[in-house]
Amino acid sequence: MRDAGEITEDFCRIGRRLVTEGLIGANFGNISIRSGDGFYITQHGSYLDLPGELVYVSLEGPAPRQASSECRVHRQIYKETPHRAVVHAHPPHAVALSISKNAISPVDSEGLLFCPCIPVVTGFPGSEELALNVSQGLLVSSVTIARGHGTFAGGIDLDEAYIRTSLAEHSCRILILLKQIVPDAEYST
Amino acid sequence: MRDAGEITEDFCRIGRRLVTEGLIGANFGNISIRSGDGFYITQHGSYLDLPGELVYVSLEGPAPRQASSECRVHRQIYKETPHRAVVHAHPPHAVALSISKNAISPVDSEGLLFCPCIPVVTGFPGSEELALNVSQGLLVSSVTIARGHGTFAGGIDLDEAYIRTSLAEHSCRILILLKQIVPDAEYST
Amino acid sequence: MRDAGEITEDFCRIGRRLVTEGLIGANFGNISIRSGDGFYITQHGSYLDLPGELVYVSLEGPAPRQASSECRVHRQIYKETPHRAVVHAHPPHAVALSISKNAISPVDSEGLLFCPCIPVVTGFPGSEELALNVSQGLLVSSVTIARGHGTFAGGIDLDEAYIRTSLAEHSCRILILLKQIVPDAEYST
Amino acid sequence: MRDAGEITEDFCRIGRRLVTEGLIGANFGNISIRSGDGFYITQHGSYLDLPGELVYVSLEGPAPRQASSECRVHRQIYKETPHRAVVHAHPPHAVALSISKNAISPVDSEGLLFCPCIPVVTGFPGSEELALNVSQGLLVSSVTIARGHGTFAGGIDLDEAYIRTSLAEHSCRILILLKQIVPDAEYST
Repeated sequence: MRDAGEITEDFCRIGRRLVTEGLIGANFGNISIRSGDGFYITQHGSYLDLPGELVYVSLEGPAPRQASSECRVHRQIYKETPHRAVVHAHPPHAVALSISKNAISPVDSEGLLFCPCIPVVTGFPGSEELALNVSQGLLVSSVTIARGHGTFAGGIDLDEAYIRTSLAEHSCRILILLKQIVPDAEYST
Repeated sequence: MRDAGEITEDFCRIGRRLVTEGLIGANFGNISIRSGDGFYITQHGSYLDLPGELVYVSLEGPAPRQASSECRVHRQIYKETPHRAVVHAHPPHAVALSISKNAISPVDSEGLLFCPCIPVVTGFPGSEELALNVSQGLLVSSVTIARGHGTFAGGIDLDEAYIRTSLAEHSCRILILLKQIVPDAEYST
Repeated sequence: MRDAGEITEDFCRIGRRLVTEGLIGANFGNISIRSGDGFYITQHGSYLDLPGELVYVSLEGPAPRQASSECRVHRQIYKETPHRAVVHAHPPHAVALSISKNAISPVDSEGLLFCPCIPVVTGFPGSEELALNVSQGLLVSSVTIARGHGTFAGGIDLDEAYIRTSLAEHSCRILILLKQIVPDAEYST
Repeated sequence: MRDAGEITEDFCRIGRRLVTEGLIGANFGNISIRSGDGFYITQHGSYLDLPGELVYVSLEGPAPRQASSECRVHRQIYKETPHRAVVHAHPPHAVALSISKNAISPVDSEGLLFCPCIPVVTGFPGSEELALNVSQGLLVSSVTIARGHGTFAGGIDLDEAYIRTSLAEHSCRILILLKQIVPDAEYST
């Protein structure tokens, strides 16, 4: 098990990448990693590029009130899937595409290889319904989009979950750009 | 009451976030916070990520000539609303959408929760008319758009006003992206 | 007359802003300021955010071969107009719009105030024809676009020329976004 | 022949530019330079802005397994063309345009001058087919796009290969923006 300093540094490093790449703005999004019988997650309302103190949450029982408002979704993912880290972001192209689609089929080579069918699920932010739907999505795909809300990506560590977030946004951006180039093409969205 | 050094540092920190996130370019935009019987505001023509000395403006009487050209709007907001900080930015998607709409109804989950109806108001930049219209808008919504000009967001502090600016731009961007995906959808703009 | 160190620092500072804001990519673009009987300009092929040694060019006679390839345009601007600094950038929305228009009429409030009619001129990059056309454009507008190539903005100093570049790109971006929102609107392009 | 420290610093410097300019996201893309009887290339899965140790690959024989998954393409380019450095990136506009085109003809002045006809080739990422097709493309153009995948640009050094990558993306972005402005124009895509 890694020490608290290393874990915090990892959160900062990945948070800065998410912000710099435009995958989240302001204080939106939240990230977590599995540790012991629970997981570390960012505080409610914190800036991911400067997350401050992390909150430890057990897999069972009430979560500390400082924990991110999406805490319930992260917990359900850890209960239902083998993922060891989760990144929740609000990438604009993924969010926009999720509003009009039930699943997203990338056409770029990386999307085709690593996330050929991205599930789009529903549920109010932070709700039990969303938690159940996202965790089901993450059993079949490494990234799932909560409709009109944002991506949830899982991985063996924060790097992998971040990379899958970036990949999903890239694939969605390509689909929207294609729609501008060839408005009627069947592959474009 | 916080000291001048802390206030200045807050302005720099939020200014850098506004610039980095693309919510303003060059030396556009201006920000202020309530303090004592007036408020601190950025200088006319200053870069928000490097604002230099702040200008103190009373709620009544003539404003120092170095104060931002939107000083009158900030003053009216503080007179008419409970906001303690104001961020005025020029986010491109919010500005573009404001030109063809009288009010903006986000469809993403954060927009629906935090700014479900963003007023669009008119008035020449820096004018009394704009000041009156924006302050009325900020009584019913935490963010208001001056048509073809930019956002005014209020909050308990600069962080909250900045976060609401970022949120409004995100919601407007989603609406414009949706328009590209589903040109005729009624929800898309 | 300012010393070489201050001038170099100004070039770096403005170069970094142009790059960070996405107004130029890679080693494109060039900037200059009037000084004595000539002007300082960036080297041919230099990165504007790390310009290295500047090149001094007289208003008459051959220019040093290290000078930027757009040196002739800058010289003509200084001969024909009162501008004291010039920024040449390749902002994508301004370049795209210039290809289908003979002049650009912004609809955002800043564009309407500061560059209500942006001339679009023609001429091969670095040519005498371009130099003559751009300098004529900069007599009637603080910014002019070379068709399919990029912006030339003048000012009393590099800050002003940069701010006008940023403003022109913002105005062009708003016009293109509007075209997506209201495809047939007469104001949209 | 330059020493290992200088080479590593060059990789970092160019990697940071590629990331900052948005030409790659996350840990995608890979870059290499010719050296001795082979070339240095980034590791499989490394972040280009923080590439860590480089991998040396001979022009013949098996490549170390840590080498980038596109190692075969880089090798073929060095065997078949005079390029001394290669940058492989995933610029979104170039990728999107490549999906619907067999070759891309820029309309901006830089594109017309430096890459007037950008070949689009096919082949599975990392495959021999892709290696052969890309290297053929780079015999006739300084940049080639692997369909739906990304750009490969060659040059005398990493700077030149990066600059050509940036240029190709700029040209593709202009084409897509033009398509939004003048949907039916024959030059627009």
